Amino acid sequence: MKINNNFNNIQESYLFSTIARKTNEFKTAHPDVNVIRLGIGDVTKPLCSQVIKELHSAVDDMSRAESFRGYGPEQGYDFLKEELVKYYAKKKVSLDNNEIFISDGAKSDIGNILDLFDKDNVVLIPDPVYPVYVDTNTMAGRKILFMDANGENGFLPVPDDSVKADIIYLCSPNNPTGAVYDYEKLKMWVDYANKNDAVILFDAAYECFVEGDDLPTSIYQIEGAKSCAIEFCSFSKTAGFTGTRCGYTVVPFDIVKEDTSLNKMWLRRQTTKFNGVPYIVQKGAAAVFSDEGQNEIKEAIVYYKENAKIMADALDKLGISYTGGKNSPYIWLKCPNGMSSWEFFDFMLEKANVVGTPGAGFGKNGEGYFRLTAFNNRENTIEAMERITKAINSL
Amino acid sequence: MKINNNFNNIQESYLFSTIARKTNEFKTAHPDVNVIRLGIGDVTKPLCSQVIKELHSAVDDMSRAESFRGYGPEQGYDFLKEELVKYYAKKKVSLDNNEIFISDGAKSDIGNILDLFDKDNVVLIPDPVYPVYVDTNTMAGRKILFMDANGENGFLPVPDDSVKADIIYLCSPNNPTGAVYDYEKLKMWVDYANKNDAVILFDAAYECFVEGDDLPTSIYQIEGAKSCAIEFCSFSKTAGFTGTRCGYTVVPFDIVKEDTSLNKMWLRRQTTKFNGVPYIVQKGAAAVFSDEGQNEIKEAIVYYKENAKIMADALDKLGISYTGGKNSPYIWLKCPNGMSSWEFFDFMLEKANVVGTPGAGFGKNGEGYFRLTAFNNRENTIEAMERITKAINSL
Repeated sequence: MKINNNFNNIQESYLFSTIARKTNEFKTAHPDVNVIRLGIGDVTKPLCSQVIKELHSAVDDMSRAESFRGYGPEQGYDFLKEELVKYYAKKKVSLDNNEIFISDGAKSDIGNILDLFDKDNVVLIPDPVYPVYVDTNTMAGRKILFMDANGENGFLPVPDDSVKADIIYLCSPNNPTGAVYDYEKLKMWVDYANKNDAVILFDAAYECFVEGDDLPTSIYQIEGAKSCAIEFCSFSKTAGFTGTRCGYTVVPFDIVKEDTSLNKMWLRRQTTKFNGVPYIVQKGAAAVFSDEGQNEIKEAIVYYKENAKIMADALDKLGISYTGGKNSPYIWLKCPNGMSSWEFFDFMLEKANVVGTPGAGFGKNGEGYFRLTAFNNRENTIEAMERITKAINSL
Repeated sequence: MKINNNFNNIQESYLFSTIARKTNEFKTAHPDVNVIRLGIGDVTKPLCSQVIKELHSAVDDMSRAESFRGYGPEQGYDFLKEELVKYYAKKKVSLDNNEIFISDGAKSDIGNILDLFDKDNVVLIPDPVYPVYVDTNTMAGRKILFMDANGENGFLPVPDDSVKADIIYLCSPNNPTGAVYDYEKLKMWVDYANKNDAVILFDAAYECFVEGDDLPTSIYQIEGAKSCAIEFCSFSKTAGFTGTRCGYTVVPFDIVKEDTSLNKMWLRRQTTKFNGVPYIVQKGAAAVFSDEGQNEIKEAIVYYKENAKIMADALDKLGISYTGGKNSPYIWLKCPNGMSSWEFFDFMLEKANVVGTPGAGFGKNGEGYFRLTAFNNRENTIEAMERITKAINSL
């Protein structure tokens, strides 16, 4: 018996465990202090009433033999896929039902999609980055190249023609930097991928935070993307489904590699190694697309975005530079006074009693940066920014 | 870009599509005939009232900020794992919470567990078999050896010391044959695995159909299994969760290969490529273990088993030999008069208007056999067996 020794090459992430340990130590030493967490990437608002109503109704369906649902299609029910086709049509993206695969979340699909590719592909990943891109490829023994996302390029790297990559990860709006690709820069990536026979894995989990029509919310808004890009998206941040688990992946018919349809491969992968998302959850997700559902989820997104604006305004006043905050729930700020990420973490915890996420935990280019999230409630967000302002002004 | 060319080696399964086509052709030609399906592997009874009650309550939790649940532990909530620890304790199997991983179903885990193993392992799979074992390994490019399960060994093959295998699949009660390993034969496998540094992947999805204490319902009831076996189980057949999606996998701390804990590897795999089962679904699954829940699900299992008994009694009267039917929802019968699987399928459809599953679809040793399932309702099961009796008696 030989184990998959690539697991030994995955780096242990101490980021969140170290944050938890330091926070707990501080709280133990200062039991009366109210520590505010602006480090969490999880939503805090409950599911909206339309979703709740539909979840209850679906539970009732499961209680009666005549409406009970057993095994469903592994790739998702048509009632949900049809809503997504309409959602994409509003973005002027035309998709077929069978190009959409419903899943239990973007994280699963982003990992599992790698089953489709040979080990011998060169993977290109931005730094800083959501650690799952790196870990899943390391687990499979693939060679990873990193590309710099930094202050100079606004955390939005563009293709370097001298680098030959086969699998390219892009996340826009970005986690952790909050930076968003515009049409022009994203077109550069699509052109690069088509020219180099590469596949772009496009993580659109935060697309609902983009305001207006000036920025793309789907890579398929870029001409040529259907022959090179797979898009991952999720109801987690759109509709508060982080604990309800539903996402979707688009694999266009037009992506054909070595004469093989990646859509057909993914269908085969999912029908073989997955058994679909709960009927109840898919019914709840479909309710997001009702008129009332759309109004409700937009209200929640606006709420989080107002939090982000409060944070951004405070940083503007402090003269601290950052990306994100406008089209993203994340703010990625440059630590003041040349502090390192962890120095600033300690400073924030001790002087402002606010917990954030040290940028260094997302890659080497994250050093000197710090991530704040807009997912706490209004009261805490205001209070946190007042404390941060006071602490930084006293520097 | 190189695709994973192993996908080209996966055989297309025409089994269920051919059954559907033949059935539809027959129904089109004979629109007035009531065709009864005894081929389905899906449950038909709705979720029990305790589960429904708890699902509603969990949906309500998600509607209020104070009880809302976002990201949960990828490996499952303790409230459900604790119920499973108690469930195993009743089988006299002592497990730790952290040896149990909650998932969206046995099919996903049986596929995904292969991430832990090197490509260069020899896989041993019984024939006939649930096709997922073969397809998932073919997809990863592994070498597969088959072992004969046939009339001579009662469809329960035992180890052959001349065969060196690294990964061994066992399913008991078996799909499709309904055969169940006894303590003695299962001990032979555990001893073989420990001696040969192999891992047994034990599919216990049908354990709840086993009657009495004479047969094992968990491989951990066999001494030595904790150092060599991973067990997969599911609420699908136990509590009708085929469309609700919840299962669990046990990876004991004691399985250590190449000085590496498989438990730790699986935790790493799941935290990296999975985001947990919906809170709502886990609450529903936990309700299965309440006293009322246990009574209700046992009632449903008894119902299906009574169907199986009706089927078995009819076959006994006809003098047709079979396995299963007692400790399994499946009956695996020898086609009468030397008919092939597909000849018998056509005969059943045309003369009895009953649809079953040709054994040949599960592997070469399935030729000449036929699978019936006990998951239809009582009325249809009785009617079907009457028709089958008449048709076979007229041969």
